[in-house]
Amino acid sequence: MGDFPGHALPGVFFFIAGLWWSTKSILKYVCKKHKRTCYLGSQALFQRLEILEGIVLVGMTLIGIIGLQFIAGGPHLTIKKESSWSRLLRWHHLNMYFFFGLLGVANILCSTISSLPVSLTKLMMSNAFLVEAFIFYNHTHGREMLDVFVHQILVLVSFLTGLMAFMEFLIRKNVLLELLRSSFVLLQGSWFWQIGFVLFPPGGGPAWNLLDHDNIMFLTVCFCWHYALAYIVIGANYAFITCVELKIQKVLPSLQTHKTG
Amino acid sequence: MGDFPGHALPGVFFFIAGLWWSTKSILKYVCKKHKRTCYLGSQALFQRLEILEGIVLVGMTLIGIIGLQFIAGGPHLTIKKESSWSRLLRWHHLNMYFFFGLLGVANILCSTISSLPVSLTKLMMSNAFLVEAFIFYNHTHGREMLDVFVHQILVLVSFLTGLMAFMEFLIRKNVLLELLRSSFVLLQGSWFWQIGFVLFPPGGGPAWNLLDHDNIMFLTVCFCWHYALAYIVIGANYAFITCVELKIQKVLPSLQTHKTG
Amino acid sequence: MGDFPGHALPGVFFFIAGLWWSTKSILKYVCKKHKRTCYLGSQALFQRLEILEGIVLVGMTLIGIIGLQFIAGGPHLTIKKESSWSRLLRWHHLNMYFFFGLLGVANILCSTISSLPVSLTKLMMSNAFLVEAFIFYNHTHGREMLDVFVHQILVLVSFLTGLMAFMEFLIRKNVLLELLRSSFVLLQGSWFWQIGFVLFPPGGGPAWNLLDHDNIMFLTVCFCWHYALAYIVIGANYAFITCVELKIQKVLPSLQTHKTG
Amino acid sequence: MGDFPGHALPGVFFFIAGLWWSTKSILKYVCKKHKRTCYLGSQALFQRLEILEGIVLVGMTLIGIIGLQFIAGGPHLTIKKESSWSRLLRWHHLNMYFFFGLLGVANILCSTISSLPVSLTKLMMSNAFLVEAFIFYNHTHGREMLDVFVHQILVLVSFLTGLMAFMEFLIRKNVLLELLRSSFVLLQGSWFWQIGFVLFPPGGGPAWNLLDHDNIMFLTVCFCWHYALAYIVIGANYAFITCVELKIQKVLPSLQTHKTG
Repeated sequence: MGDFPGHALPGVFFFIAGLWWSTKSILKYVCKKHKRTCYLGSQALFQRLEILEGIVLVGMTLIGIIGLQFIAGGPHLTIKKESSWSRLLRWHHLNMYFFFGLLGVANILCSTISSLPVSLTKLMMSNAFLVEAFIFYNHTHGREMLDVFVHQILVLVSFLTGLMAFMEFLIRKNVLLELLRSSFVLLQGSWFWQIGFVLFPPGGGPAWNLLDHDNIMFLTVCFCWHYALAYIVIGANYAFITCVELKIQKVLPSLQTHKTG
Repeated sequence: MGDFPGHALPGVFFFIAGLWWSTKSILKYVCKKHKRTCYLGSQALFQRLEILEGIVLVGMTLIGIIGLQFIAGGPHLTIKKESSWSRLLRWHHLNMYFFFGLLGVANILCSTISSLPVSLTKLMMSNAFLVEAFIFYNHTHGREMLDVFVHQILVLVSFLTGLMAFMEFLIRKNVLLELLRSSFVLLQGSWFWQIGFVLFPPGGGPAWNLLDHDNIMFLTVCFCWHYALAYIVIGANYAFITCVELKIQKVLPSLQTHKTG
Repeated sequence: MGDFPGHALPGVFFFIAGLWWSTKSILKYVCKKHKRTCYLGSQALFQRLEILEGIVLVGMTLIGIIGLQFIAGGPHLTIKKESSWSRLLRWHHLNMYFFFGLLGVANILCSTISSLPVSLTKLMMSNAFLVEAFIFYNHTHGREMLDVFVHQILVLVSFLTGLMAFMEFLIRKNVLLELLRSSFVLLQGSWFWQIGFVLFPPGGGPAWNLLDHDNIMFLTVCFCWHYALAYIVIGANYAFITCVELKIQKVLPSLQTHKTG
Repeated sequence: MGDFPGHALPGVFFFIAGLWWSTKSILKYVCKKHKRTCYLGSQALFQRLEILEGIVLVGMTLIGIIGLQFIAGGPHLTIKKESSWSRLLRWHHLNMYFFFGLLGVANILCSTISSLPVSLTKLMMSNAFLVEAFIFYNHTHGREMLDVFVHQILVLVSFLTGLMAFMEFLIRKNVLLELLRSSFVLLQGSWFWQIGFVLFPPGGGPAWNLLDHDNIMFLTVCFCWHYALAYIVIGANYAFITCVELKIQKVLPSLQTHKTG
């Protein structure tokens, strides 16, 4: 992951995941409010979406693991190479992928086997993010100050996401909690881009001074802007879905009249 | 903010905010207990107060941001100046203002759009204080010991305020939790004054020795006095509102008799 | 407080307080189970006990504050003496007493004024212990390793007590939570004695080596024994009260027959 | 405990405990779902199992304590030996055993005395693990970096187990919370084995370099694999019990027909 695309790619994935989770939460909330128009909110559809989500997650995990292992000088499933560990950081990333894969498996299982407790997915989600925080916490030994700082922020965001998912596991059906968690996921996505820009400036720009404390001061502010951006994205998403839902509500009766007519 | 008025001004604002929030909580609590006399407690009035609160918050945020940007050598919206960051601490303060502005926006939205979850304001309040704590935590690099200590106390108070607001978001209608949060806001207000007196003694008094550990010992005690003061203010407020309410309860029947008579 | 009696005295007070609080919790629990025999559990009696508890707390606080101020070279209400702070550690202790005094005031107010929320006492108790933890945390600058360690343990116990009291404030009528908090208070009481024995060995015994890390290792074990002791005390108390209650239950019917006969 | 068997033994115990607790939780959950076939789930049987569990715990504690005291150069109940503490680390382990013994006592008492609150066992379990975390936290002074790291991980796992048990104490009948706690216990068991392999390589293998930071990086990954293993064990256990239960459900009616026929 030691280049710009290596940070931009997970950034894109987390941003899409955040968008998707916020959309799902808002849809469920809106559907529960207006039961009449809720062909979208039918239990069966949401269940199928969960399975799809799980399959996508598992698929991406498999691609990620295979890619990390065999492409571009990966460890090829060997852990030790001549009495020293081989490519430890790759194994770190692989582990994070694996736990997100477990989340996908939990998604599929919970939607197909009815005897499983439904909050299992929330628990596995909390788990995946907390494991990510744990690994990133032990990831940056011996690096420069600024490098450590941007990864510490990542640990903070992962930890908060995991904590919020755990609270969802305990307190069900709180739409704001779900949106808060989604906003943290969005934040993590855009922060990955920020890390890429700071550590590996694309386009041959001048590198950041990794030892200048003013840069930390600035990134503190910058992090808040990313957070505000995540809020704005979720607010816009909410407004958009509510508007569409109102339009559908107006159109629907006439459609139904056509059908029954 | 590097002078006495720069710390006294936010101190006054937080003190007024704390007073106002405690008054609102007590009024709601008293009104719920004595439903009969509650012309004050009518849902509509409280809603209008919320909108007013939101407008005041947004207005103050705008004034603050414009002031910080363009008055007295502000950065004039530029982030970089000759390859180094320009006036980073101003940008720090500006960010805090911004998140309090978001709280104002949430106040207005929640009172006008009925489909929004009502606890959104609590979440945004928690957010604003936690962001403040995060920024102050990264605010004092390279300063003297005492300077760092008084700001760490500020971080503690902000964090506790944010935590209490988050608990209010989860546990609704607990008047003591609201008063506790208000007392922390009052405490923050009076502590800003204390910081002003310590770092920039007004009236040309002798400066504090920023490296003497005895001063930290004393400020620990001092902080507790501020906390006790916040309690006394809220207790007096509670007694005052309850007394007024009792007076009104006695006068009201005769008034109503007049009207109907 | 810099001598053996200065640590033994608060130890005794905390131990008595822990015993009393555990007795109160167990009595309430047993009375609720066997409603018939509960002349002890009458609401009025418990209310009077609360008022008495409050008066005792306020009285002890006043005695403590006056004693600390005017006896044995106290600061006599002066904070500054010749440009340096006078007797700061005394002011630290005085502050802790003050917040326990506030708990007493809350006890009295909640039992006499019915419009106050009943959980105010729990909040003030949580407060008193958390303030104690905060002050002890800033209390031991520049002391020897072992001295700092025993006070850190005190901070831990105070913090846990405050946290448990705060959880009682949120979750009412959980007898085990109350007993857990009482056990922490007992633990704090006996730990004060331990501090006295470590720092000021009575009877002219040899002083402990404050720089030997083995002593920390031993005190870790020792702390667990104190904790086990607190459990045994509370268990014995529970067994004793349950036995007495069973005896009363057997004797009571015959007494009542006498009366009615 | 300073050898390989000294770490393998507690590892086996914790692994068995984790397996047993997860089995119990799953059995209770499955029995509650299918009330008809639940001869296993009869309240009386579970109560007898609790008593058995308690007796086994108390027995193992006694054996452990006596073993530590009198076998292989134990302290023979003496704390001091010639003005220095004798075998402090043994006393550390002894203390941990003692609190697990208390858990056993609580198990027995709660199952035999009906007036005791049922969640006492959860509280004592939380207690035992938190005390273990506290002791291990103060256990590794002056050791090498890797030695400290593997014990810190142990502190983390113990703390999380204690926290989960405390949450179970507050939130009853959440099967996933119970399984999460069981998975942490399993994790602790397998991690003890890992510690044994790292610090005392059996079979005369080459010792790990205790000062190489790469080893910490690798053990971070390794810890996650242990965690994944714990998940897989619990998942397999769940699948196995559900399958057996389904088989029994099919066989049972015919058996009952035989009996009644």
